[in-house]
Amino acid sequence: MDGLDNFCPIPMHNMRNIKLTIEYDGTRYNGWQSQPGGLTIQDMLEAAIYKLTNEKAKVTGAGRTDAGVHAYGQVANFYTASSIPAGKFSFALNTMLPGDIVVTKSEEVSLDFHARFSAKGKKYEYLIYNSIHPPALLKDRAWHVFYNLDVEAMNEAALHLAGTHDFAGFAARDPSRPGLNTIRTIREVSVERISNIIRISISGDGFLYNMARIITGTLVDIGRGKMEAGRIKSIIDKRDRKLAGMTAPPQGLYLVEVYY
Amino acid sequence: MDGLDNFCPIPMHNMRNIKLTIEYDGTRYNGWQSQPGGLTIQDMLEAAIYKLTNEKAKVTGAGRTDAGVHAYGQVANFYTASSIPAGKFSFALNTMLPGDIVVTKSEEVSLDFHARFSAKGKKYEYLIYNSIHPPALLKDRAWHVFYNLDVEAMNEAALHLAGTHDFAGFAARDPSRPGLNTIRTIREVSVERISNIIRISISGDGFLYNMARIITGTLVDIGRGKMEAGRIKSIIDKRDRKLAGMTAPPQGLYLVEVYY
Repeated sequence: MDGLDNFCPIPMHNMRNIKLTIEYDGTRYNGWQSQPGGLTIQDMLEAAIYKLTNEKAKVTGAGRTDAGVHAYGQVANFYTASSIPAGKFSFALNTMLPGDIVVTKSEEVSLDFHARFSAKGKKYEYLIYNSIHPPALLKDRAWHVFYNLDVEAMNEAALHLAGTHDFAGFAARDPSRPGLNTIRTIREVSVERISNIIRISISGDGFLYNMARIITGTLVDIGRGKMEAGRIKSIIDKRDRKLAGMTAPPQGLYLVEVYY
Repeated sequence: MDGLDNFCPIPMHNMRNIKLTIEYDGTRYNGWQSQPGGLTIQDMLEAAIYKLTNEKAKVTGAGRTDAGVHAYGQVANFYTASSIPAGKFSFALNTMLPGDIVVTKSEEVSLDFHARFSAKGKKYEYLIYNSIHPPALLKDRAWHVFYNLDVEAMNEAALHLAGTHDFAGFAARDPSRPGLNTIRTIREVSVERISNIIRISISGDGFLYNMARIITGTLVDIGRGKMEAGRIKSIIDKRDRKLAGMTAPPQGLYLVEVYY
């Protein structure tokens, strides 16, 4: 089903495939993916492309970020018959987009490039504001945790995540994808503190639904001493979502980069 | 006139003077100072204090930040007859305040402490986003400058600002303060680049109206090669606002700390 996302009814020899890199503040939006309620990042991009080219293009994103999740380096692609130079799309689209969505790069790629299926991996970051008071200036950009967090314990726990594992216990069930293979490889996880801000960086070949946020919720439980670092191994072994921590709220999550 | 700001009609022996440290995102507000149109930071704090204590306190701020300017460490004080422990005001007020205004500290100070007149100095930071594309995630938090800026030239120019000078050429005329002494001491200025972000830090004993923003506008003209670093000296010597650069927009400016 997903494979037909980019099915193109116009003869392909007239078309170019344009890859976009996109930064956005997800606060105001209902996530990446088009939905009946509207006001999604995909909707805004498709509307901007339509204004620019008069074509009803379908924009395919590398990752379907949830409402409130941000991106420094989301990647998407779309087909166009327009003659606008590929590198100029970013500038032209930015004049049509609201200021909280910015195309930072546009380039022509081969016709078989697919933002989602061609991706070899992704990097996410999660920001926690760890202080007794909430952060006015990061209100919609970080998760406020007032328990003092032990970053060393979080890093020790994070080591157990690295590698190839079955991450079913770190995933929300995705009803649109029954029987999904839940084995993923996490290449790198790190937790670092910069003053009141704790940044969790996770890169891997792919992420299950809510996986980065459930990993974060679990690392926070470990950091505040509610769980032991070894819990990570049990969650992986038992594939049991109930053993893991809460799903961290969306506003701390950033899609930083997509690897191809 | 200003000296009566804190004039208190209630017998002072019943009163305590509470010092607040405040972080805010200025985007939604008409600046610090109360005005007929409302929706200022001062208004929001006074409303929160009223809800909490049933007292119509006047909140005095250390600096009257303009609309759109942010603060990590604004300081204010107010008098109260309430018996709430001083250190608890921050927590209690935060439950009454919108999430983009946070009291990060509250403490009792002597009755003659005045947030503005007792201040010995202030530190401001200005964030510039220096890239061909604007920053979605810093849309209301930085000034987008697309000319490539030479940070070394900016730092060289900044050296001429340090010390005690007449800064009339770096000030907007403030009609409410005719004949104002325009001599100020800048203790430290630095310009540093972190990837696409350029941060200007300025600390001094006091700042004239729009001074931090006019200094920034002038350093940007120097950074893009439109003015020479030596221009700073002429602006100081000639006290001529027209020789300086534009007033940088408010959204890049942060009141970081007030010194007492």
